[in-house]
Amino acid sequence: MAGTNRQWLLKERPVGMIGPQHFELVESGMPTPDLASGQVLIKTLMLGFDPAMRGWVMDEPSYLPPVPVGDPMRASGVGQVVESSNPALPRGTLVQGLLNWQEYSIADPATARALAALPAGVPPNLALGIFGSTSLTAYFGFLDIGKPNPGDTVLVSGAAGATGSVVAQIARLKGCRVVGIAGGQEKCQWLREACKLDAVIDYKRDAIDQQLGLLCPDGIDIFFDNVGGDTLEAAINHMADFGRIVLCGAIAGYNDATPRPGPHNLMQLITRRIRMQGFIVIDYLARAPEAIADLTQWVGAGQLAWREDIQQGFENIPATLQRLYDGRNCGKQMLKLADPE
Amino acid sequence: MAGTNRQWLLKERPVGMIGPQHFELVESGMPTPDLASGQVLIKTLMLGFDPAMRGWVMDEPSYLPPVPVGDPMRASGVGQVVESSNPALPRGTLVQGLLNWQEYSIADPATARALAALPAGVPPNLALGIFGSTSLTAYFGFLDIGKPNPGDTVLVSGAAGATGSVVAQIARLKGCRVVGIAGGQEKCQWLREACKLDAVIDYKRDAIDQQLGLLCPDGIDIFFDNVGGDTLEAAINHMADFGRIVLCGAIAGYNDATPRPGPHNLMQLITRRIRMQGFIVIDYLARAPEAIADLTQWVGAGQLAWREDIQQGFENIPATLQRLYDGRNCGKQMLKLADPE
Repeated sequence: MAGTNRQWLLKERPVGMIGPQHFELVESGMPTPDLASGQVLIKTLMLGFDPAMRGWVMDEPSYLPPVPVGDPMRASGVGQVVESSNPALPRGTLVQGLLNWQEYSIADPATARALAALPAGVPPNLALGIFGSTSLTAYFGFLDIGKPNPGDTVLVSGAAGATGSVVAQIARLKGCRVVGIAGGQEKCQWLREACKLDAVIDYKRDAIDQQLGLLCPDGIDIFFDNVGGDTLEAAINHMADFGRIVLCGAIAGYNDATPRPGPHNLMQLITRRIRMQGFIVIDYLARAPEAIADLTQWVGAGQLAWREDIQQGFENIPATLQRLYDGRNCGKQMLKLADPE
Repeated sequence: MAGTNRQWLLKERPVGMIGPQHFELVESGMPTPDLASGQVLIKTLMLGFDPAMRGWVMDEPSYLPPVPVGDPMRASGVGQVVESSNPALPRGTLVQGLLNWQEYSIADPATARALAALPAGVPPNLALGIFGSTSLTAYFGFLDIGKPNPGDTVLVSGAAGATGSVVAQIARLKGCRVVGIAGGQEKCQWLREACKLDAVIDYKRDAIDQQLGLLCPDGIDIFFDNVGGDTLEAAINHMADFGRIVLCGAIAGYNDATPRPGPHNLMQLITRRIRMQGFIVIDYLARAPEAIADLTQWVGAGQLAWREDIQQGFENIPATLQRLYDGRNCGKQMLKLADPE
């Protein structure tokens, strides 16, 4: 195979808002086709974007090692095996998992084992979208950490996002009353009409704390938080006794140059016996089939709405990541590089 | 019965440090001896003091209604029935429960039912101390919320206090490695020598965050927090994956005129999958016999150390409460008013 391979390398660790200036586009020769036994050459077809990626470039110990400066940026993605010395992944196989911001990559046997073959008939956008890691995050975080009961009042922040909108709809399917927080009239309308939420707060227009008092007079039983900061503080003020706060993300603070203070009202966790718990979807990957089975059923029955925001162009990758942090994305953020062969 | 009855009434709601100026000592006639059916007249013998009392005078909905301005201050205590129209509580019975800062009180049937008779042979100081609510708090908070496993590293703040010292020792008895945080050389020495902790941090001398790095290199599995504020923030920095933070109290902030910000590092609850959970001992009162059985066995076997700080004099009640907030108390804070008849 001749040709070139483009990569976006992490140029420096961002302080404050992450942007294209923190990455460097390089072009090199194609990876060698002389694959060692067990290796595969993967062509990247579609990349997924998630707010948590901001944490992957921090030089701090976390659930995944930091992306080294000078290395290609890590990302979830779908690729296709275009050369193979691995009988488990023959040429043509569509695979999903942690890839990089690059057009081609050679996966060693260990890396290849961590990739999952796409089920027949599932296109890359659905594999990364409604059946992807954000939906698994929603499923296990809400059900396993939130432990909903029918009739619970559930609040979801970042409710129009890929994770939040699935949480909100699973909550509805489980018989909960669901209130969402999102930014802007268009997103709020989609949540009301397509996702059938009971109520929506537009944080760009309304005071969250005041609205929660009106919309959740008996308190919030489960708060699924993707945002943190002032949103978390406002929700704590309105939690019901024995409520659960599922900490999924804290996008409000991901691009702070210095960490912002936590909520002033943590004392209420004691007086109202509240459980606040963080989780990472990676811990649930072995149980993914449970989630996929339910999601497949709900999708088939037309019970889940979702949206996809698919950008184009290798050169636009870093700018596409930024869309998540200023709320410009409309549904699951992806970027398409190529169609399957 | 002739004579007078002294009371400490809540004069105004404190802003900032609570002190004698927020209470008013009044003297009135003895409550009438003409008891209605089911009523008892109780003479207060011993009062218990707990940091949580600071919350009881706040005008905020909480797990107990706020003490009204003009009413006697609420307190845990031991009393003796000195007149009775209630066959369940004959004259002479020693009772324990929520009383008030007053020498005598009439308990209506409902109030009387909420009082527990002291087991035979248990003196008031032990009923309020090692067998009292602070020990129940330690027992249920640590075991039910903390869910210890043998070999866990357990950190306790306010470790020399009535609750903290019992948590630390139960942790030791359950096979955990125990690190305590306390203020001053004398308290730290007692924790090391009498309570047999594995390590102690003197927060008046040492930087907590730095010491935790040295003493808990593999992370903290359970943090039992009585303090909040900077102590909580430092502990979060050193929690192990899947660690549990038991929120029992936040004495560092109880007397703040305006609430202080929460920890800047809550994001770590997500990346390390940490559960942070508040609780109130009142929810466990029905299960008190479980705790009393274990405590009785440990005390009998000489496996628990404790200290009592017993003040004297009705006029000193508000000043005795203050001792908790400046750390002057040495063990369970009590005040003795009278001996049983």
